[in-house]
Amino acid sequence: MSPERIYLDHAAGGVLLPSVQKEMLRYLVGIQASPGGGHREGREAREELEKARQRVADFLGAKEAEGVVFTSGGTEAVQSAIHGWGGSVGKGTLYLSGMEHPAVESAARRLEGGGFILVRVPVDGEGRYRWEGVKAGSGAGLVCVHLAHHDLGTVQSIREAGKFAEKAGAKLLVDATHGAGWVPMEVEDEGADLVALSGHRLGAPKGSGALWIRSGTPWRAQLEGGRQEGDRRAGTENLPGIVGLGAAVEEWKKRGDDFRREAGEAQKVLAEGILQRVPSAKLHGPKVGPGRSPQHLAFTFAGLEAESLALVLDRVGLAVRGGSGCVTREMRIPPAMRAIGATPEEARALILFTLGLGTRSEQMQEAGGRVAEGVKRLEKALGS
Amino acid sequence: MSPERIYLDHAAGGVLLPSVQKEMLRYLVGIQASPGGGHREGREAREELEKARQRVADFLGAKEAEGVVFTSGGTEAVQSAIHGWGGSVGKGTLYLSGMEHPAVESAARRLEGGGFILVRVPVDGEGRYRWEGVKAGSGAGLVCVHLAHHDLGTVQSIREAGKFAEKAGAKLLVDATHGAGWVPMEVEDEGADLVALSGHRLGAPKGSGALWIRSGTPWRAQLEGGRQEGDRRAGTENLPGIVGLGAAVEEWKKRGDDFRREAGEAQKVLAEGILQRVPSAKLHGPKVGPGRSPQHLAFTFAGLEAESLALVLDRVGLAVRGGSGCVTREMRIPPAMRAIGATPEEARALILFTLGLGTRSEQMQEAGGRVAEGVKRLEKALGS
Repeated sequence: MSPERIYLDHAAGGVLLPSVQKEMLRYLVGIQASPGGGHREGREAREELEKARQRVADFLGAKEAEGVVFTSGGTEAVQSAIHGWGGSVGKGTLYLSGMEHPAVESAARRLEGGGFILVRVPVDGEGRYRWEGVKAGSGAGLVCVHLAHHDLGTVQSIREAGKFAEKAGAKLLVDATHGAGWVPMEVEDEGADLVALSGHRLGAPKGSGALWIRSGTPWRAQLEGGRQEGDRRAGTENLPGIVGLGAAVEEWKKRGDDFRREAGEAQKVLAEGILQRVPSAKLHGPKVGPGRSPQHLAFTFAGLEAESLALVLDRVGLAVRGGSGCVTREMRIPPAMRAIGATPEEARALILFTLGLGTRSEQMQEAGGRVAEGVKRLEKALGS
Repeated sequence: MSPERIYLDHAAGGVLLPSVQKEMLRYLVGIQASPGGGHREGREAREELEKARQRVADFLGAKEAEGVVFTSGGTEAVQSAIHGWGGSVGKGTLYLSGMEHPAVESAARRLEGGGFILVRVPVDGEGRYRWEGVKAGSGAGLVCVHLAHHDLGTVQSIREAGKFAEKAGAKLLVDATHGAGWVPMEVEDEGADLVALSGHRLGAPKGSGALWIRSGTPWRAQLEGGRQEGDRRAGTENLPGIVGLGAAVEEWKKRGDDFRREAGEAQKVLAEGILQRVPSAKLHGPKVGPGRSPQHLAFTFAGLEAESLALVLDRVGLAVRGGSGCVTREMRIPPAMRAIGATPEEARALILFTLGLGTRSEQMQEAGGRVAEGVKRLEKALGS
């Protein structure tokens, strides 16, 4: 009998929250009316849509629900934020680190190709932005920061980024696709102008996401056609996904402290289990604690290449991500590993363990044991 | 006791096919793994993704499944097709009618703003393209046609459009978001290079869609970031939506003839019922038959403005669309009505009846009666 599998690749896709499941089930039966219809079925759909919008605004601490635009996920939210800003201002400066998510990086490079200036923000050895010494350009500006890093788990200070943006007369985009929920955030207090969310990392379904746009932020729609979402995102609304996202953020609003605490406890058990059992293990990014997102661990195991180890771990019943979760063709080495000064060997050895809403501390004891077992097996196979 | 409501706005959102429901339910429980994961859960997700891709290719009669890119819906598919082509060729000519869907029209106008040339294809009194006399430009070209018109139900000859495209040395985009399934199509035989699909009009969920790209067609990705969909559409795959779309097109492949026949019968009953009972009724677009999409009727009722009548019909238990299903702010009058030479009064009176997969002929007798009742009530209220 094979042991119960342990799944630790939640950043790429995890479980739906029970309340999300329940809400979505209502949308798989009966008429899937569009919120644009003037009839009773359409009005009911419109109410559901606006309820979800209000829930997302509440989750973000945003005063105006109208700022929320539903998207097909985190990537669309991020790309739409940057291209929408760029298309509106025409020229300007983007401030970003060299280790942003490819969805941010690729949009910034496209704008650079069109004449925008990119100013790179350095990071310290744990991946935190270092704003001192960054020179502010003139004209329109957009500061692009993430809430928590997808490869390193680094929690960023949005407030500090906001201070820089204010000094530079720039708008502030927070890519919260990898941090929302796990890292509390209040958009009004922290001075964000654009915030991107990924639904599936909050226990909502894939294909859901949102972009919050502060009123008055220069921005123009990227998908045109119908008049949905106040002319800001054309296309028939994905109501099951939107309602699912609304249910998920409502749950986070109520139970976020529990989710964070439970994940943090499980994270600690796993990190300690690995470090105690595997001498070759090295944790990258901030140590476990307030500086690190509570569902995220990034390890390398000296001498073991990531994909091979991930495969062996899969065989011992542990699903993890070998290598960066998000790379493009030209980024064979995760830029974050380069940015924090990891060796090329380490950069090729990155294993991500991302915990989720259903992850229990008890499982993490077992997971640590499986990591030790997998490392031993691979080392033996390689004759090391 | 209020009578059973009759819903005839399926183009804006209808019912899920039972097999789609069933497939999707599997995706609301357990791990929502990403097809990009190298672990067992990821490999299983990858198999589901590729199975759905093959099903869409089979539905379209496409030789290579690799040409299928999953999108968040029809609007993204259409916009991505046109902007992707435009971004790749840099300059060229677009051929399109003056009554394309706003998703097509807006993309074409954006390209026009960037220096592309738009050549307008005239239509006849029922909305059919008239290719004779259209002048071919030089350089790169894209012919943009729809399979069936969203406001008029007109079925277009893709073969004729293909002949023009070949003569003009242009690529052929078929916006099949409003016609797929209801109007049979074989992309290889008919010479299409790009085909856009909307999932929800095929009984799949909202938030699903696809763009088929013939190998070698100049095109570049519009959403960048992760490496999903062969670098052609970044963002975590919406697997529940994709699997739902796969199940829907599989059903159409098996039962499409029945779906079309059943809709056509119901359409005939409704059209005749309205024309017999309401002297002021006028059908726009082609008459019921092979020239008209079998789930679509467009009527005006002399002297009655669309939104008011739709509201009254809603009160008598009939959900229809008052006015064009798809207009932008500046298009207060549906361009299709202008294009076929309707009077401004008629253009403001358009009522769309779109049947769906669950629509039964027996209901259409009753629906015709409700139309007559609604028209009478509104006429009385207006004192006419």
